[in-house]
Amino acid sequence: MARIAVDAMGGDHAPGAELDAAVAAVREGPGELRVILIGDETVLQAGLAHRGGAGDSRLTVRHASQIITMDDAPAQAVRAKKDSSMRVAFDLVKAGDADAVVSAGNSGAMLACGLFVLRRVRGVERPGIVTTFPTLRGPCVLCDMGANVDIKPSVLAQFGVLGAVYARVVFGKTRPRAGLSSNGEEDSKGTELTRAAHALLREMDGDDLAYAGYVEGKDIFSGAIDVVATDGFTGNVVLKTSEGAASTVLAFLKEAFLSSTRAKLGAMLARPALEKLRKKIDYAETGGAPLLGVDGVVMICHGRSTGTALKNAIFAADRHVAGRLRERLAEAIAKHGGARSAEDSPEDSDSEPERRAL
Amino acid sequence: MARIAVDAMGGDHAPGAELDAAVAAVREGPGELRVILIGDETVLQAGLAHRGGAGDSRLTVRHASQIITMDDAPAQAVRAKKDSSMRVAFDLVKAGDADAVVSAGNSGAMLACGLFVLRRVRGVERPGIVTTFPTLRGPCVLCDMGANVDIKPSVLAQFGVLGAVYARVVFGKTRPRAGLSSNGEEDSKGTELTRAAHALLREMDGDDLAYAGYVEGKDIFSGAIDVVATDGFTGNVVLKTSEGAASTVLAFLKEAFLSSTRAKLGAMLARPALEKLRKKIDYAETGGAPLLGVDGVVMICHGRSTGTALKNAIFAADRHVAGRLRERLAEAIAKHGGARSAEDSPEDSDSEPERRAL
Repeated sequence: MARIAVDAMGGDHAPGAELDAAVAAVREGPGELRVILIGDETVLQAGLAHRGGAGDSRLTVRHASQIITMDDAPAQAVRAKKDSSMRVAFDLVKAGDADAVVSAGNSGAMLACGLFVLRRVRGVERPGIVTTFPTLRGPCVLCDMGANVDIKPSVLAQFGVLGAVYARVVFGKTRPRAGLSSNGEEDSKGTELTRAAHALLREMDGDDLAYAGYVEGKDIFSGAIDVVATDGFTGNVVLKTSEGAASTVLAFLKEAFLSSTRAKLGAMLARPALEKLRKKIDYAETGGAPLLGVDGVVMICHGRSTGTALKNAIFAADRHVAGRLRERLAEAIAKHGGARSAEDSPEDSDSEPERRAL
Repeated sequence: MARIAVDAMGGDHAPGAELDAAVAAVREGPGELRVILIGDETVLQAGLAHRGGAGDSRLTVRHASQIITMDDAPAQAVRAKKDSSMRVAFDLVKAGDADAVVSAGNSGAMLACGLFVLRRVRGVERPGIVTTFPTLRGPCVLCDMGANVDIKPSVLAQFGVLGAVYARVVFGKTRPRAGLSSNGEEDSKGTELTRAAHALLREMDGDDLAYAGYVEGKDIFSGAIDVVATDGFTGNVVLKTSEGAASTVLAFLKEAFLSSTRAKLGAMLARPALEKLRKKIDYAETGGAPLLGVDGVVMICHGRSTGTALKNAIFAADRHVAGRLRERLAEAIAKHGGARSAEDSPEDSDSEPERRAL
């Protein structure tokens, strides 16, 4: 029985979207799914009643008096706002009273909560955020999409391992093909950072990870690889560029469809098929991005998340708990040799890079 | 009268594509356009005769006995193969016997030729390669798309100036809006490199460049900015990712159009409009990417360039000569303060980064 702690005050549409998501999730999801909504009790109880979810035992409300806003400095807010809906959600997981956190709130604060409250899985140098791209031949997982910039080679190599675990658990790839994001396929390409990580990843090639070497932006979408390791700066640029390119093509398409009566008629006939296409490439459909490497299941959702996106994130969190994502990640890190000691791996949840990322 | 030196032995389809391009260029282009084809004289003369271009005074052939291949180490090849078609093309420009170089050959060697033969414009720290993205509201210029990785902040800031000159000369933007590629819009985002360049670009804001601050991947396509400054690693990732995302959307579109009889009929009706769309986002249509910052007009074309792509590159080179791109670039660099002295700006055409890039 998975119990998902939902920060009900986090997103741009909070708490409405979070309430919609919770009610829909327990109705449509697996029978054993439980949702704990965290935030202002009065507001949330009224919202549940309004949605006909007041008496549902699968839905509980946990009061929290504070809210971490998008303008709050992450590390500071996590310490200062101990009774914030986000912090309480993480505390529930830490205490074993919930199995996962879902929030559309300040994503820097999510990362800080993960590091400060849940802490890292032993051996993990830096947690990474995963995003999944649709391709013609199945999904492609990218890690990190924005949590860490200016990283060390060992961290970049580890993102390959984190991504591979995710591809294994979530997409059933027994030996995921992992590549390293670069500006060309030849070994001579890349930066000082990628060349050092390239060497480390070569050593990690084995039963549970097939290292495919350097990959280019186009390979993410070809279906030739399952995992892309990248620093958070480049990963974020990849994500936003691909979103931008995809929506530009769709805008051009719309323009083309409006360019003549004949084209308009064609578009009308093709509409159901085009609607399916739109859904396929709509990133909102995937719900949220898991934060991997902290000791718990955490789903970071976009601030603009709708009820549907949040519901999908709750379902994803439920699958990650059932799939034992956290445990299998710990096993993989242990196998591939994580940070050697506490000295190698300082607890730096309030360091500068943290606040800059996301 | 612009005289374009075309390396006829460089590309994957050489010399056929280059011959097609040269013949078509003088026939379709402005009357004063001249093309000098460089490579094996016997082969090229036969090729011209075959295409009915043998007696055309606008087309000349210059013999070169060697070829720089894609496998050649750039800096070494440029020095060792003095009679290669590429090197001779650059020598012609250096000697004042041609106004621009067009080649689909080894792009690392193109960069090395630019640095070694033409040398940099005074004050330019590193030359950058420009690529142009189509957006719904006019083109967006990106610099650098792959010539330089692991760069200094001053080089990154200068790429903004190079891109702005290009937007001014080629697209008539009097005060281009230039942004710096980052993982978020807030000043706190970015890497150590981008934050330092951010400060430098702020100082460059003025009559000829409107600095728009950090921009994200999606902004490249929104039409909100005219120029994106980025290091060559990130720029290359942006280019390849957007190509990958765009062609994936088109592949999904094709799949959608084949999914039902109704959709098929719709696609048939919309075909002419879709063909226009395809052309709009086909990067081959733009021809080539200018190398900015070396003392001459240089167009780097993709190895797979077709005759049409090469013809478009010849036309672009002609426009750059007519627009005095090189001269206006020198003026802009002088104004914004280039490298202060020879010490700050070593001639490093055979340094490691050179061979890694491209």
